[in-house]
Amino acid sequence: MKVNGKHYRSLWWDESTNAVAIIDQRWLPHEFRIQSVTTMQEFADAIVEMRVRGAPLIGATAAYGMALAMKLDPSDKHLDEAWHYLDKTRPTAINLRWALNRCKAHLSPLPEADRAAAALALAHEIADEDVEINRRIGENGLAIIREIAAKKPKGEPVRILTHCNAGWLATVDWGTATSPMYHAYNEGIPLHVWVDETRPRNQGAITAWELGSHGVEHKYIVDNAGGHLMQHGLVDMVIVGTDRTTRRGDVCNKIGTYLKALAAHDNGVPFYVALPSPTIDWTVDDGVAEIPIEERNAFETTHVQGQTEAGDIGTVQVTPMGTEGGNPAFDVTPNRLVTGLITERGVCEATPEGLAALFPDLSKTD
Amino acid sequence: MKVNGKHYRSLWWDESTNAVAIIDQRWLPHEFRIQSVTTMQEFADAIVEMRVRGAPLIGATAAYGMALAMKLDPSDKHLDEAWHYLDKTRPTAINLRWALNRCKAHLSPLPEADRAAAALALAHEIADEDVEINRRIGENGLAIIREIAAKKPKGEPVRILTHCNAGWLATVDWGTATSPMYHAYNEGIPLHVWVDETRPRNQGAITAWELGSHGVEHKYIVDNAGGHLMQHGLVDMVIVGTDRTTRRGDVCNKIGTYLKALAAHDNGVPFYVALPSPTIDWTVDDGVAEIPIEERNAFETTHVQGQTEAGDIGTVQVTPMGTEGGNPAFDVTPNRLVTGLITERGVCEATPEGLAALFPDLSKTD
Repeated sequence: MKVNGKHYRSLWWDESTNAVAIIDQRWLPHEFRIQSVTTMQEFADAIVEMRVRGAPLIGATAAYGMALAMKLDPSDKHLDEAWHYLDKTRPTAINLRWALNRCKAHLSPLPEADRAAAALALAHEIADEDVEINRRIGENGLAIIREIAAKKPKGEPVRILTHCNAGWLATVDWGTATSPMYHAYNEGIPLHVWVDETRPRNQGAITAWELGSHGVEHKYIVDNAGGHLMQHGLVDMVIVGTDRTTRRGDVCNKIGTYLKALAAHDNGVPFYVALPSPTIDWTVDDGVAEIPIEERNAFETTHVQGQTEAGDIGTVQVTPMGTEGGNPAFDVTPNRLVTGLITERGVCEATPEGLAALFPDLSKTD
Repeated sequence: MKVNGKHYRSLWWDESTNAVAIIDQRWLPHEFRIQSVTTMQEFADAIVEMRVRGAPLIGATAAYGMALAMKLDPSDKHLDEAWHYLDKTRPTAINLRWALNRCKAHLSPLPEADRAAAALALAHEIADEDVEINRRIGENGLAIIREIAAKKPKGEPVRILTHCNAGWLATVDWGTATSPMYHAYNEGIPLHVWVDETRPRNQGAITAWELGSHGVEHKYIVDNAGGHLMQHGLVDMVIVGTDRTTRRGDVCNKIGTYLKALAAHDNGVPFYVALPSPTIDWTVDDGVAEIPIEERNAFETTHVQGQTEAGDIGTVQVTPMGTEGGNPAFDVTPNRLVTGLITERGVCEATPEGLAALFPDLSKTD
């Protein structure tokens, strides 16, 4: 999407340097830094140090890493080494393994001389596929926003609340939850986005940066505020992303999503979840009972990172010395609280039947 | 309660300086600073800048402010001016108005010459009454904790979630929500307290400091975490405070309380509100519709204060430059989500009948 009036993806092929460029997201939302990634070490660092983040973007980055590996040395041995080298950068990221396996399966049968070009073409393809999936999510979500806009007095903004960053910086472009918003904005529908801070990692600040850079009106609110706003009719809909969706439509997303879903339900506010179909886990039914929740380092709860008064990036400790923190990273929103799932194939109910009808090809797990 | 082994109240009359001393809570939980309050401007600043905070403590502070006003000029005109001067410091705090009205009603009929001494005596009385009220709230809440403890395997802690700081630092002593916890702890009941951070002002860090100073086991969690903990059976009860309770038992408390009440309701976790009767506003019925919610400076949402890496108190900016924040300070929890109200006279249902039965003398508003 746009930054300072110019269109960017979160990673792209730079013809002038013959290399991939990424946005080094560690400096956002305070600084916009672009980095050319030219060595295998730099690819690994980009993923390990979370210069790039978000499952789809990590997958695309790894695919370009394989392309560089094939340019350096297209041998079977090196193909295998590169797979292992990149695979260990984020041991639990499913998209990473998925992209690497896809590259290996595609490249292995080819003659060595063809591998460099084929690997680069495949990396482009993986990146473009992600953009296309998110574009379709955006179009499908746009239809819902249009309906809400049509019922409001002309010129009054559709007020959308979102949690965490399911934005274009977590994908190659458009984002998931943000894609309907960008589509609506680009079509001229007046919007106002309530951006949840999303403690402990404050990914809302990234969402605010994205929306502001593209020109979408928004306000940054603490995670506590959404219920009050909904009680007072100040939220027309909620759109969030998801890390994992079960076959019946339970949604595992950033911690706190469940609380917003409860508030939406209590106030009759439609609660939508935007997701690319690869995040549906067809092997899981009951999300609360079956999905293990990562407990992250408590430092994230006791400390907050931001721009210091001196202009550097630094952290402050919020708690008294020695206070222990608890830090569950995700929660599960039961499907009964979800109005609809916005996917690349269309919008469906958060039910086993709803998902199976949209994805008959994927939902057969026997 | 105790700090470094010594018992403190949150404000006290210092005979040696002939002035009120307060704990300047802006520096907690990192520094324990005491301030002598000697001018009307300092009284106003103490309330506006939240050096003192919490409805009961604000009420007691205002009463001492009236005492100073009467010492400076005991005329009817100045009594009226001081009332208005202090009343405007915090628009949502019902205790502030209550204390000021009580002072005015008591002082107006008196000869000017008697007002200074009478005002000081009344301020002492208001402070002592608050301590006694909170002690009784603690005893009444203790009975509920005892019941929960009795149903658990011996030695397993009762896990209580609390939001904001309804602790002794928000009152003159004991606190409201924390008073049952301190009573239970003092009786030897094993406790584990989940302390909500309570963005944007992170009063949870104050609660953590209080509990830690007294020896109560606790963990600091972000405001997003409580729903997940309740879904997984890790919370036995919630106890929060309230800034204002309506005659039917709607509860206006720190922003985010409503979200925790929804989660408690959704998971069958008892949700209790501890309150001294002066925070009941018998003139208001429907809290959501009738209570105006203070919108505070958005700086609180875009910035976070804490201890810097260098050891000073500083702030970091979380959001990108120029991001606007929204900052509603309170929300209203409808009575249907409240299991019971813990008052100084006993525990009652959050209904007009429940409150009227406990407070027949106060509930007649005609």
